[in-house]
Amino acid sequence: MLKLALTKGRIEEKSIEKLALCGYNVEELSDKGRKLLFLCPHPEAETLQIVLAKANDVITYVEHGTCDIGIVGRDTIMEMGGDFYELLDLGFGKCRFALAGLKGKQFYKGFGHRIIATKYPNVTNRYFEAQDTECEIVKIDGSVELAPVLGLADAIVDIVETGSTLKENGLEIYEEIAPISARLIVNNASLKMKNESVGDFIDRLSQVIG
Amino acid sequence: MLKLALTKGRIEEKSIEKLALCGYNVEELSDKGRKLLFLCPHPEAETLQIVLAKANDVITYVEHGTCDIGIVGRDTIMEMGGDFYELLDLGFGKCRFALAGLKGKQFYKGFGHRIIATKYPNVTNRYFEAQDTECEIVKIDGSVELAPVLGLADAIVDIVETGSTLKENGLEIYEEIAPISARLIVNNASLKMKNESVGDFIDRLSQVIG
Repeated sequence: MLKLALTKGRIEEKSIEKLALCGYNVEELSDKGRKLLFLCPHPEAETLQIVLAKANDVITYVEHGTCDIGIVGRDTIMEMGGDFYELLDLGFGKCRFALAGLKGKQFYKGFGHRIIATKYPNVTNRYFEAQDTECEIVKIDGSVELAPVLGLADAIVDIVETGSTLKENGLEIYEEIAPISARLIVNNASLKMKNESVGDFIDRLSQVIG
Repeated sequence: MLKLALTKGRIEEKSIEKLALCGYNVEELSDKGRKLLFLCPHPEAETLQIVLAKANDVITYVEHGTCDIGIVGRDTIMEMGGDFYELLDLGFGKCRFALAGLKGKQFYKGFGHRIIATKYPNVTNRYFEAQDTECEIVKIDGSVELAPVLGLADAIVDIVETGSTLKENGLEIYEEIAPISARLIVNNASLKMKNESVGDFIDRLSQVIG
């Protein structure tokens, strides 16, 4: 049995769609109530045990070997890092990291102490370091787009998909930082010990993405 | 205007109930869609501006002075700490921190390397340090109760309300760590600069709790 940690939310549905295209029986998974653990059998391949988890936890599960493979956004990989293999760009769950703030504020033309609110302090820190610009980072857990509205921060670094959340809050993108999409990650030991079934899974998945 | 950061979820509804009892017009708040910002007027007191936020962010908002006051669980205060006044035990949102794990495992009678999964690494660390017991802490973001089931951890430290989530996953409480309830916190500067309206708010709230 192969254990797969799958990120809940934004990339979950698309992942299930691809697994169905690979021939996995995802019936139980599509019909979930509050369950988080599922078995997805396949007529020819090893059964998948799927754990639905938050993005950070997908990486934790894969790093610790609780799961052999994981599907998670590049945003979380960039923020958390960790010791695992990133083997496949799944091509869906596309969005990007962006620096954004109140419309018309001309962030880069201002001077002085800047406060940036973000769920991604490591990504933000690296971005500003690379630009040799100092800023204070405030870690926010949810609804980062409120921070400039409430006056907590001068700007935010967040993932942006359609941009409608920014627009609703009177914000605009100042600069794009990095593209993001869903990635397949594999536990180091599993890649060696379960080489054949991991390889087989990757082959099947590769054929339905693109 | 007084700005109040209110924790979304578990203690939100009870807080709104108490604010209504205090005479605030919470109509808009009770009827929310995806909005996170609300105005609650009062016939005799200062209008409240309410921001719905995640627990950690309530503390961030109050610490930075984005909000004057906050309502947040003692679990988050114990984990995050911070520079603010904790002025009132609101008496609702009661639960407790507990050490839990698979039923019948007799955690304390075992030996060797122990792994504890938790959303609260600081609380967990202090608890085990006080017992002079070494353990490895794995930070988990959601569904901590799965960690012993999946074999990631020997036990978890989490908040427990009714215990039904533990039961559903075949877990039991090994030890209770600390009682929890919702608390009123106040920004340091606001307590001085807005002393009268903060005091008035606390008086009104005090009369409807207990």
